[in-house]
Amino acid sequence: MVDVAIMGYGVVGSGVAEIIVTHKESLAKRAKEEINIKYILDIREFPGNPLEEKFTKDFNVILNDDDVKVVVEVMGGLHPAYDFVRQCLERGKSVVTSNKELVAAKGAELLQLAQDKNVNFLFEASVGGGIPIIRPMSQCLAANDVVEVAGILNGTTNFILTKMIRDQMSFEDALALAQSLGYAEKDPTADIEGLDAVRKICILASLAYGKHVYPDNIHTEGISKITLDDVSYASAWGGVIKLIGSVKKLDDGRIDIFVAPMLLPQSSQLAGVDDVFNGIMVRGDSTGDVVFYGKGAGKMPTASAVVADVIDCIKHFKARKYLYWADGEEGYVLPYEDSVCAMYIRASYSDGTDIDAVAKKIFGKINMIARTSSGKNEAAFITEEMTVKKFNALADELEKSGVKIESRIRMGDL
Amino acid sequence: MVDVAIMGYGVVGSGVAEIIVTHKESLAKRAKEEINIKYILDIREFPGNPLEEKFTKDFNVILNDDDVKVVVEVMGGLHPAYDFVRQCLERGKSVVTSNKELVAAKGAELLQLAQDKNVNFLFEASVGGGIPIIRPMSQCLAANDVVEVAGILNGTTNFILTKMIRDQMSFEDALALAQSLGYAEKDPTADIEGLDAVRKICILASLAYGKHVYPDNIHTEGISKITLDDVSYASAWGGVIKLIGSVKKLDDGRIDIFVAPMLLPQSSQLAGVDDVFNGIMVRGDSTGDVVFYGKGAGKMPTASAVVADVIDCIKHFKARKYLYWADGEEGYVLPYEDSVCAMYIRASYSDGTDIDAVAKKIFGKINMIARTSSGKNEAAFITEEMTVKKFNALADELEKSGVKIESRIRMGDL
Repeated sequence: MVDVAIMGYGVVGSGVAEIIVTHKESLAKRAKEEINIKYILDIREFPGNPLEEKFTKDFNVILNDDDVKVVVEVMGGLHPAYDFVRQCLERGKSVVTSNKELVAAKGAELLQLAQDKNVNFLFEASVGGGIPIIRPMSQCLAANDVVEVAGILNGTTNFILTKMIRDQMSFEDALALAQSLGYAEKDPTADIEGLDAVRKICILASLAYGKHVYPDNIHTEGISKITLDDVSYASAWGGVIKLIGSVKKLDDGRIDIFVAPMLLPQSSQLAGVDDVFNGIMVRGDSTGDVVFYGKGAGKMPTASAVVADVIDCIKHFKARKYLYWADGEEGYVLPYEDSVCAMYIRASYSDGTDIDAVAKKIFGKINMIARTSSGKNEAAFITEEMTVKKFNALADELEKSGVKIESRIRMGDL
Repeated sequence: MVDVAIMGYGVVGSGVAEIIVTHKESLAKRAKEEINIKYILDIREFPGNPLEEKFTKDFNVILNDDDVKVVVEVMGGLHPAYDFVRQCLERGKSVVTSNKELVAAKGAELLQLAQDKNVNFLFEASVGGGIPIIRPMSQCLAANDVVEVAGILNGTTNFILTKMIRDQMSFEDALALAQSLGYAEKDPTADIEGLDAVRKICILASLAYGKHVYPDNIHTEGISKITLDDVSYASAWGGVIKLIGSVKKLDDGRIDIFVAPMLLPQSSQLAGVDDVFNGIMVRGDSTGDVVFYGKGAGKMPTASAVVADVIDCIKHFKARKYLYWADGEEGYVLPYEDSVCAMYIRASYSDGTDIDAVAKKIFGKINMIARTSSGKNEAAFITEEMTVKKFNALADELEKSGVKIESRIRMGDL
């Protein structure tokens, strides 16, 4: 029998407890040991809960009990989670977490500590909820050089965009619907501004290329500026707008990484990933494109990924660890302005402007998009590929010539 | 440095050698050991091949060299592969194979032998080519009860069906095209009659539910009877026909498993898996549906999956094995005639038949499908759910009433 502790009895934590209790026998078979929840750490009281006697408010009870071999951290947030996890690892306990903020901010340090202490630090649930992605990437794709990873990493924004695309709902209405369904928080900033997605793509980038990528300085655009006009032009062009986290290895060893809404062709493998689903494409030099698809969040999917990691810890108490990446390095991330892409522009202009001529003069070759219900003095077009820096300069020029850019969206070739 | 041997220098075997040579450094980093190809077993000569000195025609050279810790079996076929693999495991060597025929026929026995000898027997490449599916299923989904596994498991038939659906190519023309592109063998029976797919779903079923399922007695239908008329009715109904391997756990502990063409709604997660791609849906009680998608065959994708297994063997020389399932049992597989589904029927009838009335009288509630270019005296409809046995009896009745059933296709609710 193996004693485990669960830190945090919120949505995911209660799901973890539920799976361990309800799947007791099948888990024991898979882990070759029975799993016993010895403690649950939470500052709140849960009177009448069938696990009531397991609750504690004192982290040190868990830390100092050497029978507790595996600690599940599902509190979320950086503090005190970071401090607790560090102490557990130092004490020789394996740690499983679903906390993407923690892994994105402190992954390299905690992986090193786990290695030093010969324990495991696993975080399958931190990206993609119940979709297996961390382990397949680190193991099954081990014989590949990963060329690119790109994904729809946030279910809330994907739900909102799907409502905008399918039902012509405005961004505001779709957000309100997402909130009323419990998909979005009251303060939806972390989701809609891409902060959640950037943590996840940083974790995937760290894993794929072996060096920690900190989310702080990564270009991060959300979806709050996407309008129904853009959705309609995207559709006229034959595509959809999706919020994408992407990382690509460059020939010089640097990585090109960002989170931004992208206009994807309908044929893209990620174009059909709708609603709250996540989809992650891993492009390997040998495998070609492999796509992982499923519910990226939610109590039970996330909890099941956590429990799978717990089983793995138990099966590998004395074995080598799977995961490792080194700390980040100065200059490792390509400045976003050097990133190369084609851009979609939607613009408005005053009467008498020959928008086609003006845009061509400034951008060179462009691809105008026509939609059936096009507004007056409105145009949308797609540029050739260029650096973001060059694009911004040309966009400035366009605006100086009296044309107003209403929106700009990166084109995706996924 | 770890010595490995490759048995079989065909498409996959040469790909394995290529990856080991070209990715030498990154593999050494991941395996924590350099991988050295010591022998390649093939009865053919490869004069001028850069690895020429490694070739041997004598299996015993490999078997008796105790420095060879990992043997890659990519010969295909059951004999002599089975005998060679068995001997290697008995001698204490880990074995990695891409041979689905071998795993489907002898998996339980070889896994038991590997366990007895404390070595690994891994076969990620046997299903889904480069798509990681064996390991994610056995590990990441460890905290789930697997409710159902269903997939497009054969790229050749999926290519043929895609050509029929997209380009209205006949089955014969699409097959000829697949052959000319090298996707189908000269004798395409194993692909088009579902024999390849049934081996794969048997492997996935064995893994998901822990008991070996032998492909011999599993209901296996191919796509050679699918016509453009069916494709067109499917489209009129709002769906596509795909060759699906499916296994579901029943409440009584038995499994419902088969390979058959299925009519899937356009909204199905597998409906959009086109061309030579494979897609595998794993439905877990906690995760919900997780879909894995990618190239299911091909030299480099398959070879990269083999090499990933080799790395795993090297990293886990002294660790416990991942994979295990017990031998099969009498009565474990539901007889196909007890399987429950709705059915699509296309029928022709003689002048004056009130097909609607006749079909309703026999089948009860049905859903007629209309297509724009419907032929004279032709109808298609979908029945309610019933056992295959009952359906067959009613279908007989329909035929006795003078209606000819041109085709019958199982409906899928994936």
